[in-house]
Amino acid sequence: MQKSKYRLEACFSPALYPYRQIEDAFNLVVIDVLRATTSICAAFQNGVESIIPVATIEEAKEYKRKGYMVASERDGQVLDFADFGNSAFNFMQDGLQGVEIVYSTTNGTQAMQLAPENGKMVIGAFSNLTALKDWLINQKCDVLFLCSGWKNKFNLEDTLFVGALAELILAEDIDFYSQCDSVMAAIDLWKTAKSDVLGYIEKAAHRHRLKKLGLDDVLEFSFTMDTCPVVPVLEGERLVKIR
Amino acid sequence: MQKSKYRLEACFSPALYPYRQIEDAFNLVVIDVLRATTSICAAFQNGVESIIPVATIEEAKEYKRKGYMVASERDGQVLDFADFGNSAFNFMQDGLQGVEIVYSTTNGTQAMQLAPENGKMVIGAFSNLTALKDWLINQKCDVLFLCSGWKNKFNLEDTLFVGALAELILAEDIDFYSQCDSVMAAIDLWKTAKSDVLGYIEKAAHRHRLKKLGLDDVLEFSFTMDTCPVVPVLEGERLVKIR
Repeated sequence: MQKSKYRLEACFSPALYPYRQIEDAFNLVVIDVLRATTSICAAFQNGVESIIPVATIEEAKEYKRKGYMVASERDGQVLDFADFGNSAFNFMQDGLQGVEIVYSTTNGTQAMQLAPENGKMVIGAFSNLTALKDWLINQKCDVLFLCSGWKNKFNLEDTLFVGALAELILAEDIDFYSQCDSVMAAIDLWKTAKSDVLGYIEKAAHRHRLKKLGLDDVLEFSFTMDTCPVVPVLEGERLVKIR
Repeated sequence: MQKSKYRLEACFSPALYPYRQIEDAFNLVVIDVLRATTSICAAFQNGVESIIPVATIEEAKEYKRKGYMVASERDGQVLDFADFGNSAFNFMQDGLQGVEIVYSTTNGTQAMQLAPENGKMVIGAFSNLTALKDWLINQKCDVLFLCSGWKNKFNLEDTLFVGALAELILAEDIDFYSQCDSVMAAIDLWKTAKSDVLGYIEKAAHRHRLKKLGLDDVLEFSFTMDTCPVVPVLEGERLVKIR
Protein backbone atom coordinates (compact mmCIF):
# COMPACT_ATOMS: atom_id res chain seq x y z
CA MET A 1 0.00 0.00 0.00
CA GLN A 2 1.25 3.44 -0.95
CA LYS A 3 2.18 5.67 1.98
CA SER A 4 -0.01 8.74 2.30
CA LYS A 5 2.00 11.86 1.69
CA TYR A 6 0.11 14.95 2.68
CA ARG A 7 -0.89 15.62 6.22
CA LEU A 8 -3.89 17.43 7.64
CA GLU A 9 -3.53 19.35 10.90
CA ALA A 10 -5.84 21.73 12.75
CA CYS A 11 -5.45 24.56 15.25
CA PHE A 12 -8.62 25.32 17.21
CA SER A 13 -7.50 28.90 17.91
CA PRO A 14 -5.02 31.43 16.50
CA ALA A 15 -3.34 31.19 19.94
CA LEU A 16 -2.41 27.57 19.10
CA TYR A 17 -0.90 28.42 15.69
CA PRO A 18 2.64 28.86 17.11
CA TYR A 19 2.47 25.27 18.43
CA ARG A 20 1.60 23.57 15.12
CA GLN A 21 3.70 20.54 14.18
CA ILE A 22 3.38 21.06 10.44
CA GLU A 23 6.45 22.68 8.89
CA ASP A 24 7.77 23.78 5.54
CA ALA A 25 5.20 24.08 2.79
CA PHE A 26 1.53 23.98 3.67
CA ASN A 27 -1.70 25.62 2.61
CA LEU A 28 -3.51 27.44 5.40
CA VAL A 29 -7.32 27.39 5.52
CA VAL A 30 -8.70 30.23 7.66
CA ILE A 31 -12.16 29.49 9.07
CA ASP A 32 -14.64 31.87 10.70
CA VAL A 33 -18.01 30.35 9.87
CA LEU A 34 -19.90 32.91 12.00
CA ARG A 35 -19.35 35.07 10.10
CA ALA A 36 -16.29 36.50 8.31
CA THR A 37 -15.29 33.67 5.99
CA THR A 38 -18.91 32.93 5.03
CA SER A 39 -19.35 36.62 4.17
CA ILE A 40 -16.10 36.81 2.19
CA CYS A 41 -17.18 33.88 0.03
CA ALA A 42 -20.55 35.60 -0.53
CA ALA A 43 -18.79 38.83 -1.51
CA PHE A 44 -16.67 37.13 -4.18
CA GLN A 45 -19.65 35.15 -5.43
CA ASN A 46 -21.49 38.45 -5.90
CA GLY A 47 -18.80 40.15 -7.95
CA VAL A 48 -16.42 41.75 -5.45
CA GLU A 49 -12.97 41.95 -7.09
CA SER A 50 -10.72 41.96 -4.03
CA ILE A 51 -10.76 42.23 -0.24
CA ILE A 52 -8.06 43.68 2.00
CA PRO A 53 -8.25 42.01 5.43
CA VAL A 54 -6.95 44.19 8.27
CA ALA A 55 -6.62 43.29 11.94
CA THR A 56 -7.35 46.59 13.66
CA ILE A 57 -10.16 49.15 13.62
CA GLU A 58 -7.54 51.89 13.17
CA GLU A 59 -6.34 50.38 9.89
CA ALA A 60 -9.92 50.06 8.69
CA LYS A 61 -10.59 53.73 9.51
CA GLU A 62 -7.42 54.81 7.72
CA TYR A 63 -8.56 53.00 4.56
CA LYS A 64 -12.00 54.60 4.93
CA ARG A 65 -10.38 58.05 4.97
CA LYS A 66 -8.58 57.13 1.75
CA GLY A 67 -11.95 56.43 0.11
CA TYR A 68 -12.18 52.63 0.34
CA MET A 69 -15.42 50.79 1.05
CA VAL A 70 -15.05 49.22 4.49
CA ALA A 71 -16.67 46.25 6.25
CA SER A 72 -16.01 46.42 9.97
CA GLU A 73 -17.48 44.75 13.00
CA ARG A 74 -16.63 44.13 16.65
CA ASP A 75 -18.46 41.71 18.95
CA GLY A 76 -21.09 41.16 16.27
CA GLN A 77 -22.00 44.79 15.64
CA VAL A 78 -21.29 47.06 12.64
CA LEU A 79 -18.96 49.94 13.47
CA ASP A 80 -20.49 53.34 12.70
CA PHE A 81 -17.93 54.43 10.13
CA ALA A 82 -18.31 51.24 8.06
CA ASP A 83 -20.21 50.62 4.80
CA PHE A 84 -20.87 46.96 5.61
CA GLY A 85 -21.13 44.73 8.67
CA ASN A 86 -20.10 41.10 8.88
CA SER A 87 -23.27 39.41 7.62
CA ALA A 88 -23.16 37.51 4.34
CA PHE A 89 -26.44 39.25 3.46
CA ASN A 90 -24.54 42.58 3.31
CA PHE A 91 -22.73 41.22 0.28
CA MET A 92 -25.68 39.71 -1.55
CA GLN A 93 -26.80 42.83 -3.39
CA ASP A 94 -26.31 44.59 -6.72
CA GLY A 95 -23.53 47.07 -7.39
CA LEU A 96 -20.61 45.04 -5.98
CA GLN A 97 -19.21 44.05 -9.39
CA GLY A 98 -15.48 44.84 -9.51
CA VAL A 99 -15.47 46.57 -6.10
CA GLU A 100 -12.57 46.42 -3.61
CA ILE A 101 -13.46 46.17 0.10
CA VAL A 102 -11.42 46.55 3.29
CA TYR A 103 -12.48 44.06 5.97
CA SER A 104 -11.94 44.01 9.74
CA THR A 105 -13.75 41.74 12.21
CA THR A 106 -13.52 40.53 15.82
CA ASN A 107 -11.85 37.21 15.06
CA GLY A 108 -11.53 36.23 11.39
CA THR A 109 -9.31 38.97 10.01
CA GLN A 110 -6.81 38.52 12.84
CA ALA A 111 -6.29 34.91 11.77
CA MET A 112 -5.76 36.11 8.21
CA GLN A 113 -2.55 37.85 9.27
CA LEU A 114 -0.91 34.43 9.72
CA ALA A 115 -0.28 33.48 6.07
CA PRO A 116 2.46 30.82 5.72
CA GLU A 117 5.76 31.61 4.03
CA ASN A 118 5.65 28.55 1.77
CA GLY A 119 2.05 28.05 0.86
CA LYS A 120 -1.20 29.85 0.23
CA MET A 121 -3.76 31.21 2.65
CA VAL A 122 -7.30 30.42 1.54
CA ILE A 123 -10.73 31.12 3.00
CA GLY A 124 -13.01 28.30 4.17
CA ALA A 125 -16.74 28.19 4.94
CA PHE A 126 -19.58 25.74 4.40
CA SER A 127 -20.58 27.96 1.45
CA ASN A 128 -17.42 27.01 -0.48
CA LEU A 129 -16.84 23.52 0.98
CA THR A 130 -16.68 21.44 -2.20
CA ALA A 131 -14.79 24.04 -4.27
CA LEU A 132 -12.21 24.35 -1.50
CA LYS A 133 -11.93 20.57 -1.05
CA ASP A 134 -11.28 20.14 -4.79
CA TRP A 135 -8.64 22.88 -4.79
CA LEU A 136 -6.83 21.51 -1.70
CA ILE A 137 -6.70 17.99 -3.15
CA ASN A 138 -5.37 19.27 -6.47
CA GLN A 139 -2.62 21.23 -4.72
CA LYS A 140 -1.02 18.02 -3.35
CA CYS A 141 0.35 19.79 -0.31
CA ASP A 142 0.01 19.60 3.51
CA VAL A 143 -2.98 21.50 4.90
CA LEU A 144 -3.40 23.39 8.18
CA PHE A 145 -6.94 24.29 9.22
CA LEU A 146 -6.96 27.41 11.38
CA CYS A 147 -10.13 28.13 13.35
CA SER A 148 -10.62 31.79 14.18
CA GLY A 149 -12.47 30.90 17.36
CA TRP A 150 -14.01 33.58 19.58
CA LYS A 151 -11.36 35.85 21.07
CA ASN A 152 -8.93 32.94 20.93
CA LYS A 153 -11.34 30.49 22.57
CA PHE A 154 -12.31 27.20 20.92
CA ASN A 155 -15.68 27.34 19.14
CA LEU A 156 -18.00 24.65 17.84
CA GLU A 157 -18.95 26.15 14.46
CA ASP A 158 -15.40 26.44 13.10
CA THR A 159 -14.56 22.99 14.48
CA LEU A 160 -17.53 21.40 12.69
CA PHE A 161 -16.30 22.88 9.42
CA VAL A 162 -12.83 21.38 9.98
CA GLY A 163 -14.54 18.02 10.50
CA ALA A 164 -16.66 18.34 7.36
CA LEU A 165 -13.72 19.36 5.15
CA ALA A 166 -11.23 16.85 6.59
CA GLU A 167 -13.73 14.01 6.30
CA LEU A 168 -14.27 14.83 2.60
CA ILE A 169 -10.55 15.06 1.81
CA LEU A 170 -9.63 11.84 3.64
CA ALA A 171 -12.49 9.95 2.00
CA GLU A 172 -11.63 11.11 -1.51
CA ASP A 173 -7.84 10.95 -1.72
CA ILE A 174 -5.63 8.34 -0.05
CA ASP A 175 -2.62 10.62 -0.53
CA PHE A 176 -3.90 12.59 2.46
CA TYR A 177 -3.72 11.43 6.09
CA SER A 178 -3.94 12.89 9.57
CA GLN A 179 -2.36 12.01 12.92
CA CYS A 180 -3.61 15.20 14.53
CA ASP A 181 -5.91 14.80 17.55
CA SER A 182 -7.68 18.07 16.65
CA VAL A 183 -8.61 16.75 13.21
CA MET A 184 -9.81 13.45 14.74
CA ALA A 185 -11.97 15.28 17.28
CA ALA A 186 -13.38 17.63 14.63
CA ILE A 187 -14.39 14.70 12.41
CA ASP A 188 -16.13 12.94 15.31
CA LEU A 189 -17.99 16.11 16.30
CA TRP A 190 -19.03 16.59 12.67
CA LYS A 191 -20.33 13.00 12.55
CA THR A 192 -22.41 13.75 15.66
CA ALA A 193 -23.73 17.03 14.24
CA LYS A 194 -24.15 16.58 10.52
CA SER A 195 -27.61 15.03 10.35
CA ASP A 196 -28.99 18.22 11.99
CA VAL A 197 -26.35 20.94 12.06
CA LEU A 198 -28.73 23.79 12.92
CA GLY A 199 -30.14 21.76 15.79
CA TYR A 200 -26.65 20.88 17.00
CA ILE A 201 -25.35 24.42 16.84
CA GLU A 202 -28.12 25.58 19.19
CA LYS A 203 -25.68 24.83 22.00
CA ALA A 204 -22.87 26.97 20.58
CA ALA A 205 -22.04 30.08 22.59
CA HIS A 206 -21.69 32.38 19.56
CA ARG A 207 -25.05 31.31 18.22
CA HIS A 208 -26.55 32.79 21.42
CA ARG A 209 -24.40 35.88 21.13
CA LEU A 210 -25.78 36.52 17.61
CA LYS A 211 -29.35 35.78 18.67
CA LYS A 212 -29.12 38.31 21.47
CA LEU A 213 -28.02 40.92 18.92
CA GLY A 214 -30.77 39.91 16.46
CA LEU A 215 -28.06 38.80 14.01
CA ASP A 216 -28.91 35.14 13.78
CA ASP A 217 -30.82 35.49 10.50
CA VAL A 218 -27.66 34.41 8.68
CA LEU A 219 -27.28 31.13 10.60
CA GLU A 220 -29.04 28.87 8.13
CA PHE A 221 -27.06 30.34 5.23
CA SER A 222 -23.80 29.91 7.18
CA PHE A 223 -24.35 26.16 7.48
CA THR A 224 -25.62 25.59 3.93
CA MET A 225 -23.05 23.93 1.69
CA ASP A 226 -21.81 25.09 -1.66
CA THR A 227 -23.83 28.27 -2.19
CA CYS A 228 -20.65 30.14 -3.21
CA PRO A 229 -18.28 27.91 -5.24
CA VAL A 230 -15.28 30.23 -5.00
CA VAL A 231 -11.82 29.90 -3.41
CA PRO A 232 -10.59 33.23 -2.03
CA VAL A 233 -6.79 33.29 -1.73
CA LEU A 234 -4.42 35.89 -0.26
CA GLU A 235 -2.11 37.43 -2.86
CA GLY A 236 0.12 40.05 -1.28
CA GLU A 237 -2.19 42.04 0.98
CA ARG A 238 -5.35 41.25 -0.99
CA LEU A 239 -7.78 38.36 -1.08
CA VAL A 240 -8.76 37.53 -4.65
CA LYS A 241 -10.73 34.71 -6.26
CA ILE A 242 -8.70 31.80 -7.61
CA ARG A 243 -9.58 31.52 -11.30
CA MET B 1 -36.85 27.05 38.08
CA GLN B 2 -33.78 27.98 40.06
CA LYS B 3 -31.01 29.58 38.01
CA SER B 4 -27.84 27.53 37.91
CA LYS B 5 -25.05 29.31 39.67
CA TYR B 6 -21.72 27.68 39.05
CA ARG B 7 -20.19 27.53 35.62
CA LEU B 8 -17.96 24.95 34.02
CA GLU B 9 -15.38 26.07 31.47
CA ALA B 10 -12.53 24.23 29.75
CA CYS B 11 -9.22 25.20 28.15
CA PHE B 12 -7.86 22.57 25.74
CA SER B 13 -4.28 23.80 26.19
CA PRO B 14 -2.27 25.87 28.68
CA ALA B 15 -1.80 28.31 25.76
CA LEU B 16 -5.54 29.03 25.91
CA TYR B 17 -5.59 29.69 29.67
CA PRO B 18 -5.00 33.46 29.27
CA TYR B 19 -8.18 33.63 27.14
CA ARG B 20 -10.55 32.02 29.65
CA GLN B 21 -13.81 33.85 30.32
CA ILE B 22 -14.13 32.65 33.90
CA GLU B 23 -13.06 35.28 36.44
CA ASP B 24 -12.83 35.77 40.18
CA ALA B 25 -13.06 32.63 42.25
CA PHE B 26 -12.78 29.25 40.55
CA ASN B 27 -11.28 25.86 41.19
CA LEU B 28 -8.77 24.74 38.57
CA VAL B 29 -8.61 21.06 37.56
CA VAL B 30 -5.30 20.22 35.90
CA ILE B 31 -5.52 17.18 33.60
CA ASP B 32 -2.71 15.13 32.05
CA VAL B 33 -4.22 11.67 31.68
CA LEU B 34 -1.14 10.31 29.86
CA ARG B 35 0.50 10.39 32.31
CA ALA B 36 1.32 12.94 35.01
CA THR B 37 -2.01 13.38 36.77
CA THR B 38 -2.78 9.64 36.67
CA SER B 39 0.62 8.98 38.26
CA ILE B 40 0.20 11.68 40.91
CA CYS B 41 -3.09 10.13 42.03
CA ALA B 42 -1.39 6.71 42.18
CA ALA B 43 1.45 8.18 44.27
CA PHE B 44 -0.92 9.62 46.88
CA GLN B 45 -3.00 6.45 46.90
CA ASN B 46 0.20 4.52 47.69
CA GLY B 47 1.23 6.64 50.64
CA VAL B 48 3.25 9.53 49.21
CA GLU B 49 2.91 12.50 51.59
CA SER B 50 3.50 15.42 49.25
CA ILE B 51 4.65 16.25 45.72
CA ILE B 52 6.44 19.40 44.58
CA PRO B 53 5.62 20.02 40.90
CA VAL B 54 8.32 21.93 39.03
CA ALA B 55 8.27 23.14 35.43
CA THR B 56 11.91 22.80 34.40
CA ILE B 57 14.53 20.05 34.40
CA GLU B 58 16.96 22.48 36.06
CA GLU B 59 14.69 22.88 39.08
CA ALA B 60 14.26 19.10 39.32
CA LYS B 61 18.06 18.63 39.26
CA GLU B 62 18.53 21.29 41.91
CA TYR B 63 16.11 19.44 44.22
CA LYS B 64 17.92 16.17 43.46
CA ARG B 65 21.20 17.73 44.59
CA LYS B 66 19.47 18.73 47.82
CA GLY B 67 18.57 15.07 48.43
CA TYR B 68 14.95 14.94 47.28
CA MET B 69 13.48 11.96 45.45
CA VAL B 70 12.73 13.14 41.92
CA ALA B 71 10.34 12.01 39.17
CA SER B 72 11.33 13.52 35.85
CA GLU B 73 10.47 12.82 32.25
CA ARG B 74 10.67 14.50 28.87
CA ASP B 75 8.95 13.29 25.71
CA GLY B 76 7.92 10.10 27.50
CA GLN B 77 11.37 9.03 28.74
CA VAL B 78 12.83 9.01 32.26
CA LEU B 79 15.71 11.45 32.71
CA ASP B 80 18.90 9.76 33.89
CA PHE B 81 19.24 11.64 37.18
CA ALA B 82 15.68 10.81 38.28
CA ASP B 83 14.42 8.20 40.77
CA PHE B 84 11.08 7.76 38.99
CA GLY B 85 9.63 8.26 35.50
CA ASN B 86 6.11 9.33 34.68
CA SER B 87 4.33 5.97 34.75
CA ALA B 88 1.71 5.32 37.44
CA PHE B 89 3.37 1.91 37.91
CA ASN B 90 6.47 3.70 39.28
CA PHE B 91 4.36 4.76 42.25
CA MET B 92 2.63 1.46 42.95
CA GLN B 93 5.30 -0.09 45.14
CA ASP B 94 6.21 -0.40 48.81
CA GLY B 95 8.31 2.14 50.66
CA LEU B 96 6.54 5.30 49.54
CA GLN B 97 4.71 5.88 52.83
CA GLY B 98 5.28 9.47 53.97
CA VAL B 99 7.74 10.27 51.20
CA GLU B 100 8.02 13.67 49.47
CA ILE B 101 8.67 13.68 45.71
CA VAL B 102 9.68 16.41 43.25
CA TYR B 103 7.94 16.03 39.89
CA SER B 104 8.72 17.44 36.45
CA THR B 105 7.18 16.27 33.15
CA THR B 106 6.82 17.35 29.52
CA ASN B 107 3.34 18.82 29.83
CA GLY B 108 1.54 18.29 33.12
CA THR B 109 3.76 20.08 35.60
CA GLN B 110 3.86 23.20 33.40
CA ALA B 111 0.08 23.48 33.66
CA MET B 112 0.40 23.14 37.44
CA GLN B 113 2.18 26.50 37.58
CA LEU B 114 -1.11 28.24 36.73
CA ALA B 115 -2.90 28.00 40.09
CA PRO B 116 -5.70 30.60 40.42
CA GLU B 117 -5.48 33.41 42.96
CA ASN B 118 -8.96 32.78 44.37
CA GLY B 119 -9.49 29.06 44.27
CA LYS B 120 -7.74 25.76 44.55
CA MET B 121 -5.73 23.82 42.00
CA VAL B 122 -6.57 20.12 42.05
CA ILE B 123 -5.41 17.12 40.03
CA GLY B 124 -7.78 15.21 37.74
CA ALA B 125 -7.50 11.77 36.13
CA PHE B 126 -9.87 8.89 35.42
CA SER B 127 -8.35 7.22 38.47
CA ASN B 128 -9.87 9.84 40.82
CA LEU B 129 -12.95 10.77 38.74
CA THR B 130 -15.71 10.20 41.31
CA ALA B 131 -13.76 11.52 44.29
CA LEU B 132 -12.95 14.69 42.35
CA LYS B 133 -16.53 15.07 41.10
CA ASP B 134 -17.85 14.84 44.68
CA TRP B 135 -15.31 17.39 45.92
CA LEU B 136 -16.01 19.88 43.10
CA ILE B 137 -19.77 19.69 43.66
CA ASN B 138 -19.35 20.18 47.43
CA GLN B 139 -17.19 23.25 46.86
CA LYS B 140 -20.07 25.16 45.19
CA CYS B 141 -17.72 27.19 43.04
CA ASP B 142 -17.00 27.77 39.32
CA VAL B 143 -14.68 25.17 37.76
CA LEU B 144 -12.08 25.52 35.03
CA PHE B 145 -10.79 22.32 33.44
CA LEU B 146 -7.26 22.79 32.12
CA CYS B 147 -5.95 20.17 29.71
CA SER B 148 -2.18 19.86 29.67
CA GLY B 149 -2.23 18.82 26.03
CA TRP B 150 0.95 17.84 24.22
CA LYS B 151 3.38 20.74 23.95
CA ASN B 152 0.42 23.10 23.96
CA LYS B 153 -1.46 21.14 21.29
CA PHE B 154 -5.00 19.82 21.84
CA ASN B 155 -5.12 16.15 22.76
CA LEU B 156 -7.91 13.59 22.84
CA GLU B 157 -7.20 11.87 26.16
CA ASP B 158 -7.40 15.00 28.34
CA THR B 159 -10.48 16.17 26.41
CA LEU B 160 -12.28 12.87 27.04
CA PHE B 161 -11.66 13.29 30.76
CA VAL B 162 -13.17 16.80 30.68
CA GLY B 163 -16.22 15.29 28.99
CA ALA B 164 -16.53 12.48 31.55
CA LEU B 165 -16.20 14.81 34.54
CA ALA B 166 -18.43 17.59 33.17
CA GLU B 167 -21.15 15.11 32.21
CA LEU B 168 -21.17 13.72 35.76
CA ILE B 169 -21.30 17.13 37.43
CA LEU B 170 -24.04 18.49 35.16
CA ALA B 171 -26.11 15.32 35.59
CA GLU B 172 -25.84 15.32 39.38
CA ASP B 173 -26.24 18.95 40.43
CA ILE B 174 -28.48 21.51 38.73
CA ASP B 175 -26.53 24.32 40.41
CA PHE B 176 -23.86 23.77 37.76
CA TYR B 177 -24.17 24.81 34.10
CA SER B 178 -21.93 25.40 31.10
CA GLN B 179 -22.09 27.72 28.10
CA CYS B 180 -18.57 26.86 27.05
CA ASP B 181 -18.14 25.35 23.58
CA SER B 182 -15.10 23.40 24.77
CA VAL B 183 -17.12 21.69 27.51
CA MET B 184 -19.92 20.90 25.02
CA ALA B 185 -17.45 19.41 22.54
CA ALA B 186 -15.72 17.38 25.27
CA ILE B 187 -19.03 15.90 26.45
CA ASP B 188 -19.98 14.90 22.89
CA LEU B 189 -16.59 13.31 22.28
CA TRP B 190 -16.90 11.43 25.58
CA LYS B 191 -20.34 10.18 24.55
CA THR B 192 -18.80 8.87 21.31
CA ALA B 193 -15.89 7.23 23.12
CA LYS B 194 -17.17 5.95 26.44
CA SER B 195 -18.52 2.56 25.43
CA ASP B 196 -14.98 1.59 24.31
CA VAL B 197 -12.45 4.17 25.50
CA LEU B 198 -9.37 2.03 24.81
CA GLY B 199 -10.60 1.34 21.29
CA TYR B 200 -11.35 5.02 20.75
CA ILE B 201 -8.01 6.23 22.05
CA GLU B 202 -6.22 4.08 19.46
CA LYS B 203 -6.40 7.11 17.19
CA ALA B 204 -4.80 9.51 19.67
CA ALA B 205 -1.36 10.75 18.69
CA HIS B 206 0.17 10.35 22.17
CA ARG B 207 -1.02 6.78 22.40
CA HIS B 208 1.24 6.06 19.41
CA ARG B 209 4.09 8.07 20.90
CA LEU B 210 3.95 5.89 24.05
CA LYS B 211 3.65 2.67 22.06
CA LYS B 212 6.76 3.53 20.06
CA LEU B 213 8.65 4.00 23.34
CA GLY B 214 7.20 0.76 24.79
CA LEU B 215 5.44 2.81 27.47
CA ASP B 216 1.86 1.95 26.62
CA ASP B 217 1.55 -0.67 29.39
CA VAL B 218 -0.07 1.98 31.56
CA LEU B 219 -2.82 2.83 29.07
CA GLU B 220 -5.51 0.56 30.46
CA PHE B 221 -4.84 1.78 34.01
CA SER B 222 -4.98 5.42 32.81
CA PHE B 223 -8.53 5.00 31.51
CA THR B 224 -9.84 2.92 34.43
CA MET B 225 -12.09 4.90 36.74
CA ASP B 226 -11.79 5.32 40.49
CA THR B 227 -8.73 3.19 41.26
CA CYS B 228 -7.31 6.04 43.40
CA PRO B 229 -10.05 7.88 45.34
CA VAL B 230 -7.88 10.85 46.35
CA VAL B 231 -8.02 14.56 45.55
CA PRO B 232 -4.52 16.06 45.33
CA VAL B 233 -4.57 19.83 45.92
CA LEU B 234 -1.83 22.46 45.69
CA GLU B 235 -1.03 24.07 49.05
CA GLY B 236 1.76 26.59 48.70
CA GLU B 237 4.32 24.88 46.48
CA ARG B 238 3.25 21.35 47.42
CA LEU B 239 0.54 18.97 46.28
CA VAL B 240 -1.05 17.19 49.23
CA LYS B 241 -4.04 14.92 49.62
CA ILE B 242 -7.28 16.59 50.70
CA ARG B 243 -8.39 14.87 53.90
